[in-house]
Amino acid sequence: MDLLRFDFNVLYLLELIGTFVFAISGIRLAAKKEMDLFGAAVIGFVTALGGGTTRDVILDSHPVAWIENPTFALLVLIAVPFTYIFRKYLIYMHRTFFIFDTIGIALFTISGMQKALDLGIHPGLAMGMGVISAVVGGVIRDILCNEIPLIFRKEIYAMACFTGALVYYWLQVAGSPTNVNYMITTAIIIGIRVISIRKNLSFPKMK
Amino acid sequence: MDLLRFDFNVLYLLELIGTFVFAISGIRLAAKKEMDLFGAAVIGFVTALGGGTTRDVILDSHPVAWIENPTFALLVLIAVPFTYIFRKYLIYMHRTFFIFDTIGIALFTISGMQKALDLGIHPGLAMGMGVISAVVGGVIRDILCNEIPLIFRKEIYAMACFTGALVYYWLQVAGSPTNVNYMITTAIIIGIRVISIRKNLSFPKMK
Amino acid sequence: MDLLRFDFNVLYLLELIGTFVFAISGIRLAAKKEMDLFGAAVIGFVTALGGGTTRDVILDSHPVAWIENPTFALLVLIAVPFTYIFRKYLIYMHRTFFIFDTIGIALFTISGMQKALDLGIHPGLAMGMGVISAVVGGVIRDILCNEIPLIFRKEIYAMACFTGALVYYWLQVAGSPTNVNYMITTAIIIGIRVISIRKNLSFPKMK
Repeated sequence: MDLLRFDFNVLYLLELIGTFVFAISGIRLAAKKEMDLFGAAVIGFVTALGGGTTRDVILDSHPVAWIENPTFALLVLIAVPFTYIFRKYLIYMHRTFFIFDTIGIALFTISGMQKALDLGIHPGLAMGMGVISAVVGGVIRDILCNEIPLIFRKEIYAMACFTGALVYYWLQVAGSPTNVNYMITTAIIIGIRVISIRKNLSFPKMK
Repeated sequence: MDLLRFDFNVLYLLELIGTFVFAISGIRLAAKKEMDLFGAAVIGFVTALGGGTTRDVILDSHPVAWIENPTFALLVLIAVPFTYIFRKYLIYMHRTFFIFDTIGIALFTISGMQKALDLGIHPGLAMGMGVISAVVGGVIRDILCNEIPLIFRKEIYAMACFTGALVYYWLQVAGSPTNVNYMITTAIIIGIRVISIRKNLSFPKMK
Repeated sequence: MDLLRFDFNVLYLLELIGTFVFAISGIRLAAKKEMDLFGAAVIGFVTALGGGTTRDVILDSHPVAWIENPTFALLVLIAVPFTYIFRKYLIYMHRTFFIFDTIGIALFTISGMQKALDLGIHPGLAMGMGVISAVVGGVIRDILCNEIPLIFRKEIYAMACFTGALVYYWLQVAGSPTNVNYMITTAIIIGIRVISIRKNLSFPKMK
């Protein structure tokens, strides 16, 4: 009981952090594209909540997460002045953000996959749902800013999500405790992403 | 009873006008991009009905408005030859269209927000749903035409929608009659938009 | 009974072929855009399953087709190495692909329309749902690759879908057997598309 509660709080806290950091990444790109404050807020909103919304709509899991709990939308609203006020510091915090962003991706992968599994979806598709939760927000962000989505071009982090989702599922089937699964999966996703960027690895291109 | 009925008819009539004018705005952009008649019809359809569809899908409010009432889709079909036949006059009617377009936005904001409130959504999120109903159609239109959505760049009308939605909610909580609320809110949204364009106001840019 | 079963099998088989060919068309465009293997898989997935997903979400027909039957997602996964391995042959198979692609479009139009009719949707809107099933995947593919969707510019195949859907509905109302309807409708859609490309026909442009 106590463990479960701890568990819930940690997961929820990390989801809030992930939402906030995703929102900031959207707001920063919007600022770079010289959008106004409203545009920045919308891009932040879509980046942070687009993945979960897509997942919930496809799974028919209603109400959609951010409608059930307005805290998520509130966090995005707070992220706009936050990004504006701390814009000078945020530039130098690239490394810190990279870590938070990766944590956000890892968390969204796990929570999205778990939500799909709870609904009785086939594990292979549940993995896909986890990845959708983690990456669709960034894809819509890039489309709204008229760019080919970054994820298809330069990074292998979607592959990191898939690997993490696979490990998470194996651990769960093996009966490993949920808390341990979270930590191992998150560590794997972060590890793959950090190593791939350090070593400048990328996935082979088609053709 | 009579008042309610009058109310319904006015709201419905204005929604039909809004749908028609939104469709024309989509068809005109499609024509500018040298799309064929079919492409123009699709862009018109998406511009006019995309916002309401997104709102209904997120809120799980089924059947989606235009599936329940085929009149909306029919209006879009009529808008295609209408735009083609009157293309010479439509160029000179820029000011008239601007007014209708703004009325459409105001109406879609109010009706979208009211629909969300009726479903028991948190008022702050219901405001967001109103804005989604009003602006998503135009955003998809711009994406399909491969442009950065206009709304993020040049106009403050989304802000006008938000302000209108806020006033509408306050009036409703204060117990003001629905008809009066419609008129005041619509007037405020139109007022903000007209003034902002006249005075060439724009929202501060990020960064 | 036997006929129905035969019917189901043929329809299902053709849908599988359509899914596979659509996936390949997405993967090929992704390869041309120098995306990595993961990006290619995602684009393939979206091209093959995006239309049906949009239809099911708008119609609130849950679970979405590819979540109910994981075979569809599996086919997309198989299409990635298939396209990679046979890339040299696929270039010369342009004509074969064109035929399969057109069969896919015809089948998706019919099955999407039939699904909407089964849910009691107005026939005119059901036709629209058939076209959505057939073309939305390709539209999202083009948007993700940052191009103005092909369908709005160069081909009249959406018009072919509409014509096919209309004929299908007429035949059904006239009481013609389902198998015959499938064959006639598919033949009409393929015929219109082949002739329009041979004769270099295109729909009149707006303006």
